[in-house]
Amino acid sequence: MRLPDSATLLARQARIREQFDTLNNDALVVTAFPNIRYLANHVGSAGILVLTTEAAHLVVDFRYESAIAALQQSASACPGLRVWPVPGSYEEALLGCLSELGVERVGLESSSVTLARYEWLVANVKSRSLPLSFRSTSGIVERARMVKDATEVAILREAALRLDGVVDAAFRAVRSGVAERAVAVQIEAAMRDAGYERLAFDTIVASGPNAALPHHRAGERVLAAGDLVVLDFGGVLDGYCCDITRTVSVGPASERARDLYDAVHAAHQAAVAAVRPGVQTTVVDAAARSVLEAKGLGPNFGHGTGHGLGLDVHEDPRVGKPRADLEPVTLEAGMIFTIEPGAYVAGFGGVRIEDDVLVTTDGCEVLTRPRRDLLSV
Amino acid sequence: MRLPDSATLLARQARIREQFDTLNNDALVVTAFPNIRYLANHVGSAGILVLTTEAAHLVVDFRYESAIAALQQSASACPGLRVWPVPGSYEEALLGCLSELGVERVGLESSSVTLARYEWLVANVKSRSLPLSFRSTSGIVERARMVKDATEVAILREAALRLDGVVDAAFRAVRSGVAERAVAVQIEAAMRDAGYERLAFDTIVASGPNAALPHHRAGERVLAAGDLVVLDFGGVLDGYCCDITRTVSVGPASERARDLYDAVHAAHQAAVAAVRPGVQTTVVDAAARSVLEAKGLGPNFGHGTGHGLGLDVHEDPRVGKPRADLEPVTLEAGMIFTIEPGAYVAGFGGVRIEDDVLVTTDGCEVLTRPRRDLLSV
Repeated sequence: MRLPDSATLLARQARIREQFDTLNNDALVVTAFPNIRYLANHVGSAGILVLTTEAAHLVVDFRYESAIAALQQSASACPGLRVWPVPGSYEEALLGCLSELGVERVGLESSSVTLARYEWLVANVKSRSLPLSFRSTSGIVERARMVKDATEVAILREAALRLDGVVDAAFRAVRSGVAERAVAVQIEAAMRDAGYERLAFDTIVASGPNAALPHHRAGERVLAAGDLVVLDFGGVLDGYCCDITRTVSVGPASERARDLYDAVHAAHQAAVAAVRPGVQTTVVDAAARSVLEAKGLGPNFGHGTGHGLGLDVHEDPRVGKPRADLEPVTLEAGMIFTIEPGAYVAGFGGVRIEDDVLVTTDGCEVLTRPRRDLLSV
Repeated sequence: MRLPDSATLLARQARIREQFDTLNNDALVVTAFPNIRYLANHVGSAGILVLTTEAAHLVVDFRYESAIAALQQSASACPGLRVWPVPGSYEEALLGCLSELGVERVGLESSSVTLARYEWLVANVKSRSLPLSFRSTSGIVERARMVKDATEVAILREAALRLDGVVDAAFRAVRSGVAERAVAVQIEAAMRDAGYERLAFDTIVASGPNAALPHHRAGERVLAAGDLVVLDFGGVLDGYCCDITRTVSVGPASERARDLYDAVHAAHQAAVAAVRPGVQTTVVDAAARSVLEAKGLGPNFGHGTGHGLGLDVHEDPRVGKPRADLEPVTLEAGMIFTIEPGAYVAGFGGVRIEDDVLVTTDGCEVLTRPRRDLLSV
């Protein structure tokens, strides 16, 4: 597995530390696993990272001891990482670490700290009269993760490129008389052959009326002539997620199917054309949405236009409609996200077209191989 | 997908409502997805269930509309379920639902509510002067889920049974000259063939020295004669997780390997023999642990003896050592969990033997097919 080198980790940590003054923090407790990996190369589903102004501290149980020892002797070592064992609970170990470090104003990641953990910490700080205070933070590391560094761009470019062969395999698998689930099995076999370490999400093969169901996965329905089939899948390469959707027709497409496809394709093109540094995510969404609205398909496009890709398959930036509770993001070079407008007609079917794009200095690069026409297989 | 019928859902909800008086609650806000599925048959990765003394309310976004409409016309309908749409954020929709229902004392699941969600709710209750108060709850639904009902036992029995063919495929795949990852691919193909809807967790194929690494998955290491290989995998059937570990030797096993295997097997047998209603989980753990300690292998067994299986692959009861922060569970008929002692020797290798057991009225039933001897392949 490729991991970023030590210098990259230091640069990432520095971007977080720059915000400590504004946050009025001595330390940030990082509990979201992708954030821990991003800052310290610790790959796991347990562990708490404490980032102070001077160093990085990993509270982690014995299961990861040998993996971390190996990491620390590699070119991807987290410089100066101090490891804190967990003899009892993680909360107890974290409190011990914070006390010993003497930090007082401690930021918590409010989206990944549970109410149970928070209440335990607050109660124990109080009962032990510790000079510690916690404050909620939101999206500190997630915002840094939005702009990919060179290591991440290289991995995500390759992850998206490898989807090409999987798309071909998917097209070969789609034919009349085959069940959705069997198509999904072929797609997933092709993803393993392509070298992805795991699926980024459950593969979607939605045929005929199922293609209109936004949350359909892959079931027992048998594909029939005239079906539109939405194929949505992605893999994880070196920890990073790619994601693609293609819609194909089983046999010759009806005029209605072709019109729906062309409308979604036009929306997709409009969104891609809108991507450049300085543009807000809501503007990219509006570019796609207005094309569909002009064709009377506004109500048939019930989701956002895209989402960031990285260590999470759905991360910032979200490319969607303006929302009262969410600031739009202004695009910067190095951001990578999906463009995936769709239109869904209950009882008939649906179309979604999704590619992964990288914001460049003057526009964007489509990382997945784009496809213009509705393929009939 | 098999889902429990409406009567089963009502019985499950009743077990939760019985605790409302003790909890001093008018309603419980259920946010852990397996808990929502358990109580309402809503299968998804979004949604909030509000259980009041009279009814069940599901706050859920448009993506699930059609799936819920179909559910509600089936034999697995959630009786009287009222669906609340989510035009903006889930928090906003939840607060609207709670206000309209007129509930005042509202329990939150503290292990699945994030600090961010909790702070939003508290701030908005205050700024809108709503007559609502929140209190943390812990493990209410999880404790009910520990004792499986007939539907769950039937599914889990079948899920464990189907592992048998996968174990055979795994044994066929293990041989000198093959990489760990290639063995994992064969295991996962066999799991799909066996009809599991997905993997319960990333497949572990840990060979030679890797078998001593508690967090190793499956890598590029090529199996060689004399290796011990730990194979740990599981599938999900109708939402329920099974889990098995077998350790095999590549070619003839050394005396040291056989001794290690026999010690772990003896520990495994001792734990299985200790399982019956009325016994505490810590006693089952001690049964396995004392066997390994007597052979000087106590320090080589660094994890717990087992974990509950159900909608989560790791759930209550935890079968482990006494812990200051965790009450041991007293076993009841209908509980299903793993028994999986292991012994790991750095630089040499390791052994783990895992089966799934159902607590019966007078002992236990091993759901996976037990295996006595160290197989050499």
